[in-house]
Amino acid sequence: MSPAGEHTLHEISTQDQAWRAAYEATRSHREELLALWRDNRGLPVVFTGCGSTHFLATYAAALFQAMTGAPCRAAPASELYFHTESIAAPGDLPLIVALSRSGETSETLQAVTKLTSSGSDCLTITCQPESRLATLATATIAIPEAQEQSLTQTRSFAAMLVAVQTLAALAANDRQMLDDLGRLPALALGVMGRSEAVAEAVASRTSYHRISFLGSGAMYGLACEGSLKLTEMSLTMADAHTFLEYRHGPMALVDEQHLVVGLISDDMRDYEIEVLREVKRYGGRVLAIANSDRALLDLDEVLAIRANIVPRAQAVLFLPVIQFLGYHRGLSKGLDPDRPRNLVMSVRVAGLEAG
Amino acid sequence: MSPAGEHTLHEISTQDQAWRAAYEATRSHREELLALWRDNRGLPVVFTGCGSTHFLATYAAALFQAMTGAPCRAAPASELYFHTESIAAPGDLPLIVALSRSGETSETLQAVTKLTSSGSDCLTITCQPESRLATLATATIAIPEAQEQSLTQTRSFAAMLVAVQTLAALAANDRQMLDDLGRLPALALGVMGRSEAVAEAVASRTSYHRISFLGSGAMYGLACEGSLKLTEMSLTMADAHTFLEYRHGPMALVDEQHLVVGLISDDMRDYEIEVLREVKRYGGRVLAIANSDRALLDLDEVLAIRANIVPRAQAVLFLPVIQFLGYHRGLSKGLDPDRPRNLVMSVRVAGLEAG
Repeated sequence: MSPAGEHTLHEISTQDQAWRAAYEATRSHREELLALWRDNRGLPVVFTGCGSTHFLATYAAALFQAMTGAPCRAAPASELYFHTESIAAPGDLPLIVALSRSGETSETLQAVTKLTSSGSDCLTITCQPESRLATLATATIAIPEAQEQSLTQTRSFAAMLVAVQTLAALAANDRQMLDDLGRLPALALGVMGRSEAVAEAVASRTSYHRISFLGSGAMYGLACEGSLKLTEMSLTMADAHTFLEYRHGPMALVDEQHLVVGLISDDMRDYEIEVLREVKRYGGRVLAIANSDRALLDLDEVLAIRANIVPRAQAVLFLPVIQFLGYHRGLSKGLDPDRPRNLVMSVRVAGLEAG
Repeated sequence: MSPAGEHTLHEISTQDQAWRAAYEATRSHREELLALWRDNRGLPVVFTGCGSTHFLATYAAALFQAMTGAPCRAAPASELYFHTESIAAPGDLPLIVALSRSGETSETLQAVTKLTSSGSDCLTITCQPESRLATLATATIAIPEAQEQSLTQTRSFAAMLVAVQTLAALAANDRQMLDDLGRLPALALGVMGRSEAVAEAVASRTSYHRISFLGSGAMYGLACEGSLKLTEMSLTMADAHTFLEYRHGPMALVDEQHLVVGLISDDMRDYEIEVLREVKRYGGRVLAIANSDRALLDLDEVLAIRANIVPRAQAVLFLPVIQFLGYHRGLSKGLDPDRPRNLVMSVRVAGLEAG
């Protein structure tokens, strides 16, 4: 029996190599991917996945909509399969971008089979180049270097995120962002060490037993992923909201037993900080994650990323502190972050198995 | 000082009159609304609101997309204002459907001002006919009969939901649904009594302290509203998921301290029931709400709506049991459901006040 969380710790700690692999894999398919993007010009784009990859889809849809102007949306694969008409009009032929670590999740396979049978193209991003999802796709970005032994997705999520960012930079022809994404692995060393130190300090406190993650714009998808990491690895009830929505109800729960983790953006930073200050006034604890710690030092805990790259290239650098927080809080509660209870590595739904 | 929850109880209990008012108000503007819908044919539709009305927007976008084929999406008003480019392409001129009880929420006012200044039309659904949001709109459905004294939205949410349903039936020219919506008030008497009985029974148990709401398709928006009601009225940490997503992580939390409330649909009923059975196997408690109790009787608690109307007209009948659950659980914890802590009746964000 391996030590609790052994795989998770290894996978979090080595993710910078997977970032690099994702960047290179995406760039190496540049011509094929751009041709697919051009062929689908004018069509809606649906990003889909399950669990973590649905949250990655949420991030991706907001990023691609903003960078390319294409009508982009995210949907859980099960909803895309069962409620296609709530997501796309009949005859729409949306481009499907399917995200899956295993490439074998039954809902994702069924949704892609249904939509491609109707004439849609599909781009798959996965860690398993030989998976059925890769076989079904028009084009595939495969990142085998990001495969994992832990049930909880950490390195794989981060690598697929870098692939999404790289694809967006290619589609929007944003050379500055593309250059900056290439610099991510060099930034990892400093960020990883500071992330683990902050996460350990926050995890060692036991006074809170509820956690909310806040993020605006595309970063809302990362807030959702944060809540899932804490749920899976530390069995802590956690949720996610966009920043200004937090005042419209969820703030009622805030007291000294509540931790709020804020993923601070550049473009509405002042409004976001004001929400975190309000959390403090109601007695809640705050962890703020931002590129710069300017005007944040009155909050409880702050992680400054300090990356001199464009904001849209920074997202993946916000992940390690969240992942370490789940890992250390899980360990401190005597759990095994590698093996959350009640879950399986790759879901197969009875009655939804592909032939 | 009035008894705790006095206004909430009154507003939940009298909502059938507000349903009728919403139905009549929408039908009475039939020609104006259909003209606005026709004028915007081919354009995307963005449903927006804050808190409860953002969840109503989530319900509405899925319903309208499925019934009309128009490209519909939901967004919190703050995100529509600050991250417009993540939601609509420049020059898109989406039709905005703005939902607001007070018609004075600062984020909604700012988002509508921004989008209408760029040339978008706006349809407002509100309880305040004289509000600034009504003044800004191209057309307004006002339901003053649904106004409330409680901070927590119950009757107002239900009435605005009926307005959304009626508008969808008009836009899709679905006469069966329109007829069935007119029959809702007559169904209220039976549903209200059974809803309160089930809610009281579930609220009286104190063994659970976390709640998850599950709903598929448009009903996911109602699941979100359920989680907000329990948060606000009973200070219980609650979340919402689509049914099949629940296996992709959140299920880890399920044990004897967890209640799962399932809003069962007609079209993927068997898959949804299987998720609830899995919750039971992991030791969780289940409350299933469905039109028919067929094949549900092995679950812990079941509310059968038993309405002989089309499924899309039934949604509002799922609300009273959720609202009563928040109310009775709040009372049993010694709280005042009328006045959740840390919140205000209608949010005004500093720096976002309209002139």
